[in-house]
Amino acid sequence: MNDIRHLLGTELPVIQAPMAGVQGHALAVAVCQAGGLGSLPCAMLTPAAMHAELGALAAQTDRPYNVNFFCHAPPQPDPARQAAWLAALAPCYDALGLVPPAAAAGPGRVPFSAEALQVLQTFRPPVVSFHFGLPGPALLAPIKGWGATVLASATTVAEALWLADHGADAVIAQGLEAGGHRGHFLGNGLGDDLSEQMGTLALVPQVVQALGGRLPVIAAGGIADAAGVAAAKALGAAGVQVGTAYLLCPEATTSAVHRAALQSEAARHTTLTRLFTGRPARGIVNRFIRELGPMNPAAPAFPLAAAAVAPLRERAEAQGSGDYSPLWAGQNASGCRAAPAGEITRALAAGW
Amino acid sequence: MNDIRHLLGTELPVIQAPMAGVQGHALAVAVCQAGGLGSLPCAMLTPAAMHAELGALAAQTDRPYNVNFFCHAPPQPDPARQAAWLAALAPCYDALGLVPPAAAAGPGRVPFSAEALQVLQTFRPPVVSFHFGLPGPALLAPIKGWGATVLASATTVAEALWLADHGADAVIAQGLEAGGHRGHFLGNGLGDDLSEQMGTLALVPQVVQALGGRLPVIAAGGIADAAGVAAAKALGAAGVQVGTAYLLCPEATTSAVHRAALQSEAARHTTLTRLFTGRPARGIVNRFIRELGPMNPAAPAFPLAAAAVAPLRERAEAQGSGDYSPLWAGQNASGCRAAPAGEITRALAAGW
Repeated sequence: MNDIRHLLGTELPVIQAPMAGVQGHALAVAVCQAGGLGSLPCAMLTPAAMHAELGALAAQTDRPYNVNFFCHAPPQPDPARQAAWLAALAPCYDALGLVPPAAAAGPGRVPFSAEALQVLQTFRPPVVSFHFGLPGPALLAPIKGWGATVLASATTVAEALWLADHGADAVIAQGLEAGGHRGHFLGNGLGDDLSEQMGTLALVPQVVQALGGRLPVIAAGGIADAAGVAAAKALGAAGVQVGTAYLLCPEATTSAVHRAALQSEAARHTTLTRLFTGRPARGIVNRFIRELGPMNPAAPAFPLAAAAVAPLRERAEAQGSGDYSPLWAGQNASGCRAAPAGEITRALAAGW
Repeated sequence: MNDIRHLLGTELPVIQAPMAGVQGHALAVAVCQAGGLGSLPCAMLTPAAMHAELGALAAQTDRPYNVNFFCHAPPQPDPARQAAWLAALAPCYDALGLVPPAAAAGPGRVPFSAEALQVLQTFRPPVVSFHFGLPGPALLAPIKGWGATVLASATTVAEALWLADHGADAVIAQGLEAGGHRGHFLGNGLGDDLSEQMGTLALVPQVVQALGGRLPVIAAGGIADAAGVAAAKALGAAGVQVGTAYLLCPEATTSAVHRAALQSEAARHTTLTRLFTGRPARGIVNRFIRELGPMNPAAPAFPLAAAAVAPLRERAEAQGSGDYSPLWAGQNASGCRAAPAGEITRALAAGW
């Protein structure tokens, strides 16, 4: 139970965190080939793109790999709220010399679905991971049917117990330090209150204790190097999931402005913000976050906030600016190096 | 540099966190006698009480001990804001059958001062620690003059560097998991924004790296047992400071309602709240926090919020209720045991 390698069939107890928008199959392949578990994020892929990415991944490694999905309940479209969001963004559009569109509704992020399952069934990936809970039995049973290992994120003890009861084979304990979207999915009745979200050092041992050996626990959040991996092991984790440390790898598709921010002093100051998608996600504080406030309630429900921000980001990035980009990063960017992902993976695993 | 025992002269690398309001000299003595560094919190003591407590502590141990102070800048009294705070609390007073006082202004917490220094000089404690920065040179020089080791809390890399430049001999890296008052003292220009506050697993290695061996780093926040201590060591810490794990000790003065909360499921849900003092501090979520919201802006500046809450707490506790009590706790109460503080200290140190 205290080593994820037995469950995953990998050489190293290191999972590369799936990071939608900043990586495709290339990063996953590099991590797999180094002995870790590479992950392909599918939340932003159409079925056709998913098929292409999965095909490339499966063709380029014979090692175990992970395919990741979101499983949120999509909200009802709300034109009035979208209009209000566009109004809130009007000064940003102005500042960039853009005209706000009459309506903004893009595909954004989609939850795991029958269509995605169909693509997945072609490849039967050995590991499938989920964020924001787990899909229902009809979608989960086929995955377990071909023998895949199912991983899912927990941000509280209650969520870890829920996942154990609903089909997860291992729990990723996502501490508050983690970059990207918080994975919480059980409400605490306090709305956007995030006070149940715990730091990794507090969360991991409590999840390990609560599961009592039923499932292995993978530590995530703030782990940047071998020392962080050693700390996770000391806390009782069976392995680690690391994202931010891979963002400067040549195999990642991280944008130039994002790479620059990660290498600057700005990387010391991240925040949870719902501006980019509607759900709290951790990224480096930039002009957009400063001007609107990270948790601005005008942003519509996940994932509907994203579409109206896209034109701002595109225009600013064309001008070499990350002022409107989601600069996803965890609270510890000290492990970011412009080194091959295989090298990062082996360096992390040296701490185990 | 990687072991605080050399600097402190203690047998074990464990500091018992000073916890104003829930302990006096007895807890500190027990920890010192077990080989750790016991701490006496003085922020809520008059000079006379400080003298008595210090006298008892010095008489009951010949081991090194720590005396702790706050060093905030006291705010200007603001009668209008106090009146608004009392108005906000009126429903709470009503619910408890109390009449709100016309004005509430008590002593609450006082910063380190010439009066406190005078008491301190009688005892010349071997270790003095500060929260919310450091006192100015006039107050700090005499302490360093008698050879005391000076510790101070940092919640960011910038604060750690500031402390190293202003006389600290070691830095306590206080992760976001920690119970009680956040020690941040350098503004980030975002008001009550706490987004620069990091989880322990992210904070400790970045502070260690930034200080580059200039000063040892003591990890604090979320450390509940030997495994947490081992994790802190793996992160490069030179020792640990632990508070919450001592709250059930017979030597602590923790109230009955506080002890009950720590042993209940409620302890899983803490939050940072400014309701009790005016500064963000972590405690278990209770009715008061739920009703007013943890960061309610009506609460006056630290420490002026405290006086008006005191009658509510007193009445509720007399009825056996912790609904209006500050139930200070960190995010990991799993180490709380009703065991002697010496036993807790030795169990923690076993992880080093």
